[in-house]
Amino acid sequence: MTKVAIIGYGVVGSGLIELIDKNREKHSKNEIVITSILVRNKDKYIDSSHREVITTSVEEFFSAESDVVIEVMGGLHPAYDYVKNALLLKKHVVTANKDLIATFGHELFQLAKENNVSLKFEAAVAGGIPIIKPLTESLYGNGINSIQAILNGTTNFILTKMNSESLSYEEALKEAQDLGFAEANPESDVMGYDSARKLAILSSLAFDKKFQWNDISIEGITDIDENDFKYANKLNCKIKLVAESFKCKSGIYTSVKPILVDEQSILAKIDNEVNAVILNGDEIGELLFVGKGAGKLPTGSAVYSDLNDIINNRFTDVDSFNKEEANVIKFASKTCNCILRIKTSNIDEAINKCRENFNNIKIIDKSISGEVAIFIECTSEAYVEKFIENLKNEDNYEDAKKLIVA
Amino acid sequence: MTKVAIIGYGVVGSGLIELIDKNREKHSKNEIVITSILVRNKDKYIDSSHREVITTSVEEFFSAESDVVIEVMGGLHPAYDYVKNALLLKKHVVTANKDLIATFGHELFQLAKENNVSLKFEAAVAGGIPIIKPLTESLYGNGINSIQAILNGTTNFILTKMNSESLSYEEALKEAQDLGFAEANPESDVMGYDSARKLAILSSLAFDKKFQWNDISIEGITDIDENDFKYANKLNCKIKLVAESFKCKSGIYTSVKPILVDEQSILAKIDNEVNAVILNGDEIGELLFVGKGAGKLPTGSAVYSDLNDIINNRFTDVDSFNKEEANVIKFASKTCNCILRIKTSNIDEAINKCRENFNNIKIIDKSISGEVAIFIECTSEAYVEKFIENLKNEDNYEDAKKLIVA
Repeated sequence: MTKVAIIGYGVVGSGLIELIDKNREKHSKNEIVITSILVRNKDKYIDSSHREVITTSVEEFFSAESDVVIEVMGGLHPAYDYVKNALLLKKHVVTANKDLIATFGHELFQLAKENNVSLKFEAAVAGGIPIIKPLTESLYGNGINSIQAILNGTTNFILTKMNSESLSYEEALKEAQDLGFAEANPESDVMGYDSARKLAILSSLAFDKKFQWNDISIEGITDIDENDFKYANKLNCKIKLVAESFKCKSGIYTSVKPILVDEQSILAKIDNEVNAVILNGDEIGELLFVGKGAGKLPTGSAVYSDLNDIINNRFTDVDSFNKEEANVIKFASKTCNCILRIKTSNIDEAINKCRENFNNIKIIDKSISGEVAIFIECTSEAYVEKFIENLKNEDNYEDAKKLIVA
Repeated sequence: MTKVAIIGYGVVGSGLIELIDKNREKHSKNEIVITSILVRNKDKYIDSSHREVITTSVEEFFSAESDVVIEVMGGLHPAYDYVKNALLLKKHVVTANKDLIATFGHELFQLAKENNVSLKFEAAVAGGIPIIKPLTESLYGNGINSIQAILNGTTNFILTKMNSESLSYEEALKEAQDLGFAEANPESDVMGYDSARKLAILSSLAFDKKFQWNDISIEGITDIDENDFKYANKLNCKIKLVAESFKCKSGIYTSVKPILVDEQSILAKIDNEVNAVILNGDEIGELLFVGKGAGKLPTGSAVYSDLNDIINNRFTDVDSFNKEEANVIKFASKTCNCILRIKTSNIDEAINKCRENFNNIKIIDKSISGEVAIFIECTSEAYVEKFIENLKNEDNYEDAKKLIVA
């Protein structure tokens, strides 16, 4: 018998409990017993078949017997204290909480080790896609060179709608909120923070180093407008919020930003709330995982798989979060292509400035009054950033921005 | 210390040994010692740093101390006897051998269970793609409804070349052989047997039943010609050898056959020696895995991951091969679209026959003398087969064949 105590009974929690209940027969030899469920408001669960173990008291929750504590409440606090407490009580912990792992991973894994228990987090990245287990177990000993991923379903849904239905950012966000794909306060998703936290976790495992998620160069999708899509279409591209990290000579480049990807590429085919992770390794070459990045049952399934690992005594040492800190690089040493959008009263001068500063430029569009869009090939991202900064300081230039083209 | 004895030192064996040697530092607490390597011809390995443990004597091999026996020689015999012997000697076994698992899985897993050891086979399906572990561990308790996959790199390479370079089947096969992607005797690959064996293994795990691989409806690529690609192109499709199984009311449909897939679909993007597996489940929805299906290091990496599971005491019960036999269905109950190619002296009559027998037909091409290609929508595969059989019995009809359009 395995005694399980669950913190949170929301979307993921109810998916997990559904899977536990559905598979009772499979566990006949080693029954899973839910001994306590900690919630904020007990009234919501009067119809649950588990209502007798539901509690709002933290004290009561931790006094219930349990072998495994599952944290599916989300957010940093009080989840951090609860998980810490569970580890100190020598209970195995399963969490779906990327914020927690990305922010306190080093501390929590250390604590798990000291208390000789396991801390598992398959659901923290890419929901229903098995990615933590492949990285830590299947690809153990492989040299990973790069990660390229779409890790946030909300922004991918918004970008898909903006592209396919020519919606504005605000309209697409509203639709995502109405359908439950975006939260009332979408900041963490649309600003790219959620992707960055997940990227930090994957990078840590892939490169066996500690990553601070806020060291990552992050750009969200809030500034993407209809004209970006217009220019993207001219280049036969789609816009995706790409989370990327790869080895450079001096460190590891990590970034989350909207990128133009060729419409024939695999990433361009990843639409709506779907997630994708592409790993490139010395031994395995390119490996791609695609699936639902969120939702009750996909994420519940990932949590359930962690629980089953613990029940079956399958443990994996995760010490990457306690290794030396990665040297996170903001600008890659390799060259890139980009679109430069310049808002100015003097378009000819702007074009000339580009000609002077870059070797290969191509004017994409001058049809919007007071704006020119220029394709720049084979340049350095740092140099483009500097160029934009300088432009913005000049009188004639209202605004300028770049979009990387993969 | 973990003592490992390896049967075979070919492509996969050398990849595995490279990974073991590369990661010695990571295993400092639990050193991997290769105690014996069984080969056919010792002379080939005089430069190997492991030459002192290389033997051609089966007796000597099995008398060497070992905790794990790794079988990477391939083929049914004598691999079957060696693996059986290892299990009887209570050694954990890792194998990369799909023929072995697909043919003797039920017997070998039973033997492993009786001897309280583990039999692992991640490398047996889709080479470097982690798929056995996701299916047996990450998706445990999930209801899988369907598998759709490209599981054979050789045929996918040949079909890619035929499509992109307008080569004949023979020319593309020759190129695959020259590049080492196809064996001198390519039968098992091009006839679809290799895909069928891998599909049987995946289906067994996904549907928790025993599958006989030769119950699967199998069609290879040897009859695919340039005109098939011509017609496929007219429908904006590519031709892929698709291994597929899905739940029907009366059983499980399983088939390996060349299928026309829309050129915008993910499967159409899987080119050359790459493999892909799409799982569709009640909880996770659609999950896609793409990666190298063969090769020294991708396959070596899969074997190495199994070895690491054993070293870390991570065991998974696999009993699907010993469950009741699946009711394998040859024709799905759902409708399908297809191209019908009819070689006849009387094309008009052939078209009329099609009109009489099928509701929605469209003539794709009549430009080849003595042949007509007709697109048939929403029909039953069994009915088309019967129609073809009847046509072939008539005097005016030289030949007829169908190609399913996804």
